Amino acid sequence: MVQLDKLLDSIEPADAEWEQKANERLSSQIRPRGSLGHLETIAARLAGIGRTLQPDLSKKIIFVMAGDHGIAVEGVSAYPQEVTAQMVYSFTRGWASINVLARHAGASVRVVDCGVAGDIPPEWEVIDGKVGRGTASITKGPAMTREQAIKGLMVGAELVRNAREREGFGLFGTGDMGIANTTPSTAIICALCGQPPSKLTGRGTGIGDEGLNIKIQAIETALKVNKPDPNDALDVLTKVGGFEIAALAGAVLGAASVKAPIICDGLIATAGALIACRIAPRAADYLFVSHQSVEPGHIAMCDLLGLKPILSLDMRLGEGTGSALSMNIVEASAKVLVECKTFAEAGVTDTGH
Amino acid sequence: MVQLDKLLDSIEPADAEWEQKANERLSSQIRPRGSLGHLETIAARLAGIGRTLQPDLSKKIIFVMAGDHGIAVEGVSAYPQEVTAQMVYSFTRGWASINVLARHAGASVRVVDCGVAGDIPPEWEVIDGKVGRGTASITKGPAMTREQAIKGLMVGAELVRNAREREGFGLFGTGDMGIANTTPSTAIICALCGQPPSKLTGRGTGIGDEGLNIKIQAIETALKVNKPDPNDALDVLTKVGGFEIAALAGAVLGAASVKAPIICDGLIATAGALIACRIAPRAADYLFVSHQSVEPGHIAMCDLLGLKPILSLDMRLGEGTGSALSMNIVEASAKVLVECKTFAEAGVTDTGH
Repeated sequence: MVQLDKLLDSIEPADAEWEQKANERLSSQIRPRGSLGHLETIAARLAGIGRTLQPDLSKKIIFVMAGDHGIAVEGVSAYPQEVTAQMVYSFTRGWASINVLARHAGASVRVVDCGVAGDIPPEWEVIDGKVGRGTASITKGPAMTREQAIKGLMVGAELVRNAREREGFGLFGTGDMGIANTTPSTAIICALCGQPPSKLTGRGTGIGDEGLNIKIQAIETALKVNKPDPNDALDVLTKVGGFEIAALAGAVLGAASVKAPIICDGLIATAGALIACRIAPRAADYLFVSHQSVEPGHIAMCDLLGLKPILSLDMRLGEGTGSALSMNIVEASAKVLVECKTFAEAGVTDTGH
Repeated sequence: MVQLDKLLDSIEPADAEWEQKANERLSSQIRPRGSLGHLETIAARLAGIGRTLQPDLSKKIIFVMAGDHGIAVEGVSAYPQEVTAQMVYSFTRGWASINVLARHAGASVRVVDCGVAGDIPPEWEVIDGKVGRGTASITKGPAMTREQAIKGLMVGAELVRNAREREGFGLFGTGDMGIANTTPSTAIICALCGQPPSKLTGRGTGIGDEGLNIKIQAIETALKVNKPDPNDALDVLTKVGGFEIAALAGAVLGAASVKAPIICDGLIATAGALIACRIAPRAADYLFVSHQSVEPGHIAMCDLLGLKPILSLDMRLGEGTGSALSMNIVEASAKVLVECKTFAEAGVTDTGH
């Protein structure tokens, strides 16, 4: 296992020359310049990421990071904590929405126990990346220690690095499972952008007005009690984050370190991605945001990242469902770059428009 | 070949009971209610369209309707008319963006000559649906006769009906090719919604400011000269439409008549879909809009249809590229309905949220 500082040192920006070469090819293909819009932006970036005009994204994988949260008992979620492990089991059996959508995308799903409260039976064949048994309640003090946060980062990073280097996966996606985890995710964005919880807190899995007020107050308290330093993303992660959020951040760092594209899911996975890009700004070059969640904090996250989500389908599930759905679009972008003929090749009149 | 009135009579609304049954199943699946957003809306509608909880969309096809436009010589497009036939040839060879994206979607592509100006050589194996050799210029008089408009409608309708009934295709998409065809498409939406061409005219394949002014004036002239009746969509199609637009409208009518879902592409295909839904309002139940085009007239079209586009990727190409890309999302929706387990089936705690 590499050390965090070694990992961060290995992250280079995407290659602007390859991106430029890709843009030249895209502009010479038989359609009006730029008429495939965001698809062309994605395609060019894939070339810059992989240092190639032939990005191969055929092997795809989604890591679903699971963890529990001390705050779950404080009435911030519509579901009890036991559901985290129940859903983890469903993921391993192929029963859940992420399984359906990943099968449809032709992507593997791997479920990682980053910090589920209870024991996960070995026969479930969940990857053991356990950093703790649920975080401490962020309204009382830090979610975890700084060492745990780093350990969580490295769990995510190593999984992606190994999948890339040992198994040749070409496109990565992140997803989450953790009852109450929209609460720490919202706390993270509030800590980083300075906006008040009353503005950025959403209903998560579906709490009512009373639950929403409890949630807003919990986040306000968490920020007051912990005073996370907005200029130290690792401090923010430690104090108001989660074990799965640490691994979600690590996955982005891992992908960037091996020059692989990675797509993040909605609110929770994007919170992790944002932490990663604050720790290592160049990691953002390797990141795509799958979809615009209906959670208000997610818009603020995308703004901070400066990234436009690929899809906008009013989704708010998590699990990696957005990542799975958008993989098809990212793969389509790569295929346009590779397969579409140029004006010269096809003998079509080019007016340069 | 059935007659137009017989075709229209055969169109029934989507089945509300099946849609309700689907919504019940979707709401009992292991995720918070409605958390897959637009995906669930699409899934329920697919059930209402097909009268089934097991929509089978595995066989997919895109019809690319091609036609030329008299107005093309008046400086409204960035490309010369010869490009229509050149692109038709590229489609038949699998070289163009639509071919790449349809292959990626697992969809067949069929190219139809609805009204290309020149002869299409038989060895190109393009479907012959020729209604005329390019329309007349709409600034001088009607684009076509009412008989031609009906013939064009029936070309599109029969192709879809046959593909459904003889070959078992389960999901249809439309696309267009026709230099200058954003001009008649914009004239159609202006005629139907009453907004001025100066507000709804876009740059199409990429004209500059001068071309844009010529285009706006051409559409203003076309509306003044022809006075299309906004309450008679067939009149609008006849006077300011196009042969491929007629076939694009007919495809929607055909799909609705055989209870099959159909996705329309951007500005031109949506203009056709809008004509279809004005002729037979129930046809809208079978229609999905693939993406939000950057063309200003397209927003007005979606408003009139009351439909939310599935994707929004700043595309403005046509060819059916939006239809191809969004097929993956529509198919994903169907798979969620069919494959995802319920709370009871999976043994996950259901709190009813």
